[in-house]
Amino acid sequence: MPQFLDASQADFEAAFNALLSAKREDSPDVDATVADIIADVRARGDAAVIALTEKFDRITLTAERLRISTDDIAQAIDQVSEEDRAALELAANRIRAYHDRQRPEDATWVDDSGAELGWRWTPVSAAGLYVPGGLASYPSSVLMNAIPAKVAGVARLAMVVPTPDGVLNPLVLLAAQISGVDEIYRIGGAQAVAALAYGTDTIAPVDKITGPGNAFVAAAKRRVFGKVGIDMIAGPSEILVIADADNDPDFIALDLLSQAEHDESAQSILMTTDAGFAQAVSDAVDRHLLTLERRAIAGASWRDFGAVITVPDLDTAAALSNRIAPEHLELCVADPDALSAQITHAGAIFLGQWTPEAIGDYVGGPNHVLPTARSARFSSGLSVLDFMKRTTLARMTPAALRAIGPAAERLASSESLQAHGLSVTARLRKLND
Amino acid sequence: MPQFLDASQADFEAAFNALLSAKREDSPDVDATVADIIADVRARGDAAVIALTEKFDRITLTAERLRISTDDIAQAIDQVSEEDRAALELAANRIRAYHDRQRPEDATWVDDSGAELGWRWTPVSAAGLYVPGGLASYPSSVLMNAIPAKVAGVARLAMVVPTPDGVLNPLVLLAAQISGVDEIYRIGGAQAVAALAYGTDTIAPVDKITGPGNAFVAAAKRRVFGKVGIDMIAGPSEILVIADADNDPDFIALDLLSQAEHDESAQSILMTTDAGFAQAVSDAVDRHLLTLERRAIAGASWRDFGAVITVPDLDTAAALSNRIAPEHLELCVADPDALSAQITHAGAIFLGQWTPEAIGDYVGGPNHVLPTARSARFSSGLSVLDFMKRTTLARMTPAALRAIGPAAERLASSESLQAHGLSVTARLRKLND
Repeated sequence: MPQFLDASQADFEAAFNALLSAKREDSPDVDATVADIIADVRARGDAAVIALTEKFDRITLTAERLRISTDDIAQAIDQVSEEDRAALELAANRIRAYHDRQRPEDATWVDDSGAELGWRWTPVSAAGLYVPGGLASYPSSVLMNAIPAKVAGVARLAMVVPTPDGVLNPLVLLAAQISGVDEIYRIGGAQAVAALAYGTDTIAPVDKITGPGNAFVAAAKRRVFGKVGIDMIAGPSEILVIADADNDPDFIALDLLSQAEHDESAQSILMTTDAGFAQAVSDAVDRHLLTLERRAIAGASWRDFGAVITVPDLDTAAALSNRIAPEHLELCVADPDALSAQITHAGAIFLGQWTPEAIGDYVGGPNHVLPTARSARFSSGLSVLDFMKRTTLARMTPAALRAIGPAAERLASSESLQAHGLSVTARLRKLND
Repeated sequence: MPQFLDASQADFEAAFNALLSAKREDSPDVDATVADIIADVRARGDAAVIALTEKFDRITLTAERLRISTDDIAQAIDQVSEEDRAALELAANRIRAYHDRQRPEDATWVDDSGAELGWRWTPVSAAGLYVPGGLASYPSSVLMNAIPAKVAGVARLAMVVPTPDGVLNPLVLLAAQISGVDEIYRIGGAQAVAALAYGTDTIAPVDKITGPGNAFVAAAKRRVFGKVGIDMIAGPSEILVIADADNDPDFIALDLLSQAEHDESAQSILMTTDAGFAQAVSDAVDRHLLTLERRAIAGASWRDFGAVITVPDLDTAAALSNRIAPEHLELCVADPDALSAQITHAGAIFLGQWTPEAIGDYVGGPNHVLPTARSARFSSGLSVLDFMKRTTLARMTPAALRAIGPAAERLASSESLQAHGLSVTARLRKLND
């Protein structure tokens, strides 16, 4: 049974703080193992990757077979039904249309001193996309990672996906093809991350690695950070639904369960102004848990981390939501815009009763890679900007240098950086000659 | 003596690769010490911070004296000369004007399906700024970190700066005041980072920590990453100057030295199409190294990591520069715009002979916190965006859900996430009733 809290009770603050700080995931400490794997790949390259893939995925590869051939890809993709292909293409087109609007603008201007200033955005040259194997191998994640990279203009996008026992996932390969992925390797784990970061004879190194993975992948990404860029390290998924009584309890129950079915560590929270509605949703969850295919996972998540919070009003809901900083936030209330305006920290907001969070997972358009574990306080979902970087530009004219150079000389002197000052002084002297 | 390389020689590629991969910094492994310090601050709060400050900075504090009082700040600032204050204010105004233009735009639109989509940017609520003590305590760094945070709209900006033996740095305090810093604490090291990340009775926790620091500070930032956001971990500074023969060798020599004087691990590289000019610059560097105040540091940097590379043409220079991905790049050539257009990876570009890099350190306007160690391949200098985050927005209408919902159902089914699909199905069923 999930926790039932009432924000008007005296003991609420303590219970809510406990909910906020509950540790939902105990990652095994695999750091030493991962360090060894990375060192092995750096030392032996392809040979290490092949040996580790044999060990973990039970397939024997050669350097030539690390990369999945165009023929193998075409053959796998042939098995995809027309309906699945159409759904993937609809999703891809919508995700591309949304992310196209994120392309940042360059700027240059001349200021009062005559100095020309500005910046310029450029794509990362090469990016690597990690895709998990097995049950968590989601074609939608391929779209969500690959499309922003291609919209950014990344010229070379290399994907790695482990194929335990040699089994390819046709939908994952089709999603890669639709997204414009350039190379696909049948490898996974820390060895794949190491190969992408440091390169081997067969796999050229990349500059940035994104995509979800297990504890080994997460530890490897942390370790190669600095050598390459990485995206965030994602924790278990979360949803907060704020709903008034004027909702179908079944809709809300299914929205809560669609997070809970991801993972036993996932967290689903309902916040509502109506205690009767809270009970109705809770009952509907219990009913669905009798038949849901993933009821074991969803049931454990709901029991261990689920919560139903009754609040006196929506202002209170907004304030509590900002303390949670949820990854996904549904606003199923009469005026979702008014409530949304009070939200300062959330990964993604879903407005109104016709916008189930699952739409955002697949076909809405916004990215489904979002900040978890309260990190929406300081970070954003994946975007085109994650695959670009900004170079700042400055050009002084003689007049501009005369105008602002003396202040630079003064500050350099106050910081005891003499050569800094002299580099300005020498130029001003020449200008005054 | 720095390395002299010639890009037209047969052995160049090997020498250039060695230059690219040279390890310039051997950070001491302080991770275990830092883990203990963080655990101590989490367990004992103010008491731990006070004890550690007594040990490392040789001053005895109380909880009340952790924060530098307005009186102490005013008294210290009184010592600053009018000229220094004016220089700081000029710098602050120019930095603010540049960063004002970085404020991102919100967006919402309705697409063909009738879905309303968009995003909204919000500032981080509270940020912490680390400022080193002693020799590397630079007022310009306070401006470069604090002003983007305040332009972003960060409501609470807390600064920490160690004061070894109790000595306050008036210019650092003035820079904080000019930038709008809200609280200043006289603490440093890993204990200050831990206090900002986890909070103590006296110091409220923040959501994001930025600013440079020594190996202890860097290790602490790595450890608290996830609990809070952090900026990049900066390595030693670097400059690449690309210059044709039509330059004053003295200007270029001073620009190279203004990086070299930062740190024995700094790196200054000259790339030029003219071997005679290369020699003239090298001679000028040697001449300045006889008298420069920081000649010991600058000399060691130039000797150990400096390089002078002769290239056959500027196209080659651009290609080599992109492999270096320099933090600072000066283009002292007849047509800097044409050369700049070929640059794909650089933290900051300085165009033409009247733009010494030192202008960018102080008064140009762009940020001087820039990606080092080739990380300009995948990351950018500090900006207003580092203190903001984006929430994505989506709202389906019944018509939009009818249009795109079935594709979501299909994809949910292909990923075996039944509740995801049912959350859409239940709504479509009601709409069709």
